[in-house]
Amino acid sequence: MRNSRRGQVDPFIVMDVMEAARRAEAAGRHIIHMEVGQPSTPAPLGARKALAAALDQPLGYTVALGLPELRKGIAGLYRRWYGLDLDPARIVVTPGSSGAFILAFSALFDAGDRVVLGEPGYPSYRQILRAMSLEPVGIQTRIEDRYQPRPQDLPTDAQGLILASPGNPSGTVLRKDELAALTGRATELGMAVISDEIYHGLDYGAGFHSALEVTDDVFVINSFSKYFSMTGWRVGWMVVPEGHIRTVERLAQNMFICPPHASQFAALAALDCVEEADANLAVYAENRRLMLERLPQIGFARIAPPEGAFYIYADVSDLTDDSLAFAAEILERAGVAVTPGLDFDPRRGAQTLRFSYAGSSADIAEGLDRLAVFMAAR
Amino acid sequence: MRNSRRGQVDPFIVMDVMEAARRAEAAGRHIIHMEVGQPSTPAPLGARKALAAALDQPLGYTVALGLPELRKGIAGLYRRWYGLDLDPARIVVTPGSSGAFILAFSALFDAGDRVVLGEPGYPSYRQILRAMSLEPVGIQTRIEDRYQPRPQDLPTDAQGLILASPGNPSGTVLRKDELAALTGRATELGMAVISDEIYHGLDYGAGFHSALEVTDDVFVINSFSKYFSMTGWRVGWMVVPEGHIRTVERLAQNMFICPPHASQFAALAALDCVEEADANLAVYAENRRLMLERLPQIGFARIAPPEGAFYIYADVSDLTDDSLAFAAEILERAGVAVTPGLDFDPRRGAQTLRFSYAGSSADIAEGLDRLAVFMAAR
Repeated sequence: MRNSRRGQVDPFIVMDVMEAARRAEAAGRHIIHMEVGQPSTPAPLGARKALAAALDQPLGYTVALGLPELRKGIAGLYRRWYGLDLDPARIVVTPGSSGAFILAFSALFDAGDRVVLGEPGYPSYRQILRAMSLEPVGIQTRIEDRYQPRPQDLPTDAQGLILASPGNPSGTVLRKDELAALTGRATELGMAVISDEIYHGLDYGAGFHSALEVTDDVFVINSFSKYFSMTGWRVGWMVVPEGHIRTVERLAQNMFICPPHASQFAALAALDCVEEADANLAVYAENRRLMLERLPQIGFARIAPPEGAFYIYADVSDLTDDSLAFAAEILERAGVAVTPGLDFDPRRGAQTLRFSYAGSSADIAEGLDRLAVFMAAR
Repeated sequence: MRNSRRGQVDPFIVMDVMEAARRAEAAGRHIIHMEVGQPSTPAPLGARKALAAALDQPLGYTVALGLPELRKGIAGLYRRWYGLDLDPARIVVTPGSSGAFILAFSALFDAGDRVVLGEPGYPSYRQILRAMSLEPVGIQTRIEDRYQPRPQDLPTDAQGLILASPGNPSGTVLRKDELAALTGRATELGMAVISDEIYHGLDYGAGFHSALEVTDDVFVINSFSKYFSMTGWRVGWMVVPEGHIRTVERLAQNMFICPPHASQFAALAALDCVEEADANLAVYAENRRLMLERLPQIGFARIAPPEGAFYIYADVSDLTDDSLAFAAEILERAGVAVTPGLDFDPRRGAQTLRFSYAGSSADIAEGLDRLAVFMAAR
């Protein structure tokens, strides 16, 4: 049977690492997971209790833009986090941030359009763009710019720009003036801006700013996956300019019908589980402290300032020019799963690794011990 | 900000009918719902109990193709329903059948490709195709062919064909020899075939056949939404040819990460809830009997044989040439919500209505009484 060209996207390398780790565990080995980009904690207790109490309801389709109470609740989060007063009508609940990207790209871009993104960056931006017949245009960012693009880097012949703050894999944050300069320049150039803010809330003192603080002319994407610890629930959201609501609604009606109802129910209750989310955050903060203290001693010294999210991105060009083989060696010899940078940066990723600290502090400490032994013996 | 051309899809008219019905109810009126394409029953009790018991687990991301046990369980359904022995590796769990269509279209077609579908048909086929820069090519089917396309109707310059059996809105079923003739001719013409089998299991004696009974060279799409009464859970599946598994896996990893974990958990348990699903089916059978007995008496006599699903599609050209206004009049004067045919057939839909009998038998009987009074007074 036929195959499309656009269907031939790259594999997600971290998935192969996870599979190798799973095989090692199935063979009886104990593996420390520093590869996964998700909390090890379940959804907040309040969210699970609310869902359990709702399971007698039919939980049929919701309206395409999501439960009205949830959209209001998310507007409340923008007041709490940024002091912004958002019309809930602009908030679209989506099947994860993945669904939000599909909706945004459909609403904004036509086949052949060019969309700019910083490298290193989340690999699925590039693959979703390709699957939708759009052309990803990578900008090689610099460590001295905290792996974030600069306004002067933007090409003049592109239709879109994806920003990510905190970045994945870098964990670095765009300041408010940087957001203003980047969105301002992009708008001047006629580019639509999509701001990925999925790691907001995971903050260790650097603070975080939404692109909505500097402009309404932006699609902002976020999710319950990270700060609210609800990855597998597949519920995210997108804030769109007022003029795009109806277009996005029609697309969402047809492409998704609605986000999962049970997950929306749980997410609504999760908004009030601040104490539990902040307790998870305190664990990440301790993990981050451990990592920043020990990784440089161990031999991973060239890292971007990990201001948010739960990742540390290390330049290991002094250690290898084959991060895939290096990660396999670390898994094999140290029993620690880490992600080779090739997922994030097709050009320089053969010389980088991403360490996730979303696990428990005991696991992170044990993983660091193992890495120390491995590196000392190397 | 920019708008894409492909984002300008048609609205889903049934959603506007549902909203008008909701407003009428908010104003204190009692409305009988014959517009909605979903069961009024919740997910099977066994499914809800299994999920309740699993809520202490993290429920993080699953692998992109879905829980292995669920894929095996779905393979079991193909043995049970069709006597087919399917490799579970070919079964991809998706975020609803909606997610399956996005994956299938991405894997099979490039921008500008033409995809054939029968009119009347499920409106979102056309809109998802457009949103992905593909060109829907409608075939006007004939009531004497039970509103299904014939092999000789297929154009020679298209890249894909979508079949639907039972059809929505028609409820008509393709026989095994018809499936063989259609898929055979499409393959001869170099078209990829996608078979939408989402209403399988909802059978009133006509039987139902999967396209997989006549060929492996087909993408078959199905869901837990209808027979298993789990619309809002957003969990469907797709069976793909062996050579497409890896492509679809990469697309799924990037476009969706995974289907909702909690919903997959519930769906796995739902597979064993045959008794409850069949009890729902018995209600639909009674509703269908009521409709077939009374609709012709009331004045809706020109209907396609409703062999499966839970819809009756009526040609009302003797009553109106503005089905939108007619449906609004029925809602206003009879308090019954029905769907104008324009969603399903952009050419002839101004003269058709769809009646859903997915509700309770008491509601269907009451709705038929109201329709009788309305038509008698007209």
